[in-house]
Amino acid sequence: MAVVEISVAPLGTATPGVSSYVAACVEIVAASGLVYQLTPMGTVIEGDVDEIFVVLRKMHDVPFGKGAQRVSTLIKIDDRRDSGSHNLQGKVDAVMQKLP
Amino acid sequence: MAVVEISVAPLGTATPGVSSYVAACVEIVAASGLVYQLTPMGTVIEGDVDEIFVVLRKMHDVPFGKGAQRVSTLIKIDDRRDSGSHNLQGKVDAVMQKLP
Amino acid sequence: MAVVEISVAPLGTATPGVSSYVAACVEIVAASGLVYQLTPMGTVIEGDVDEIFVVLRKMHDVPFGKGAQRVSTLIKIDDRRDSGSHNLQGKVDAVMQKLP
Amino acid sequence: MAVVEISVAPLGTATPGVSSYVAACVEIVAASGLVYQLTPMGTVIEGDVDEIFVVLRKMHDVPFGKGAQRVSTLIKIDDRRDSGSHNLQGKVDAVMQKLP
Repeated sequence: MAVVEISVAPLGTATPGVSSYVAACVEIVAASGLVYQLTPMGTVIEGDVDEIFVVLRKMHDVPFGKGAQRVSTLIKIDDRRDSGSHNLQGKVDAVMQKLP
Repeated sequence: MAVVEISVAPLGTATPGVSSYVAACVEIVAASGLVYQLTPMGTVIEGDVDEIFVVLRKMHDVPFGKGAQRVSTLIKIDDRRDSGSHNLQGKVDAVMQKLP
Repeated sequence: MAVVEISVAPLGTATPGVSSYVAACVEIVAASGLVYQLTPMGTVIEGDVDEIFVVLRKMHDVPFGKGAQRVSTLIKIDDRRDSGSHNLQGKVDAVMQKLP
Repeated sequence: MAVVEISVAPLGTATPGVSSYVAACVEIVAASGLVYQLTPMGTVIEGDVDEIFVVLRKMHDVPFGKGAQRVSTLIKIDDRRDSGSHNLQGKVDAVMQKLP
């Protein structure tokens, strides 16, 4: 099971706000049926790494479809194959349980 | 106002689990008084960028204090100076409002 | 044309050194025929973004094939479709020309 | 000894090109006296992690001084304290020696 964070940002847009681009990316992952979470810095997805790669590829293209000429995409994959609780909730729970 | 995500991971530990290291890092940011959010892929902090840098520097050192010999830290800074709602909640809200 | 940086690291290996894993990843990209450059922090690849995604997916799997149970992969894509010199050499040249 | 990669990009500039911003960032690290390397995707610096943090903080501010209203900065730190060859050249050499 992989947990993957992605952020997609257009460069050279007229204004600094990019939330309309991010929303269009989130629609892609929502349509995929994969479990995901929107955070202040990106979208985190859990699932099979091959299925996630298909979604990542589509998300990266979104700003081009909205007129951007340059897109900067950051992807961080945390893929763990020895644990049954490696998912969005399990990762946060594992840390929370160790806090005082 | 800056929104910053950080993840800190030791390399060369005996086992793949790193949640005890992450928890110790979260204690540092909790003690700082800065607003933060734990996500499945890191810790997101909002605040003055100079104050945040002090916390980032401390968090990076945490695994060494717990015996690690090599630490890989990833920091992503989103610093916006033209908007009053550039914070953890405001960033997520801006996207959510644009979803269908 | 896209320029993409990737770094792949196993977690939970017995020792902090990971160069044998990195070398196996570099062999994948070398076999692909894509233009690439090894840097101190990753491997940078230029080319068609779809061709690159195939290589990224293979590189991410390499440490599992060598016994790792958890892999952390970071991918940064800089995809620009309005410029004829958006490649490994062109990007560095554009900066060098502007240095005093 | 730490090896650190940084990339600094303004959002909301009129055009997609950002090399003038990158060049101004490189001037900061050049003035620091630290050993560094310009790559197609960022600037890689070696040295004491405290000295590097001072430079990172200055580099992040560069686009604001040139009129940007939003800056996205990515920093990756690879800090290893058990090895005498953990530097720009040593890291690349370790991989090259393991290639067929």
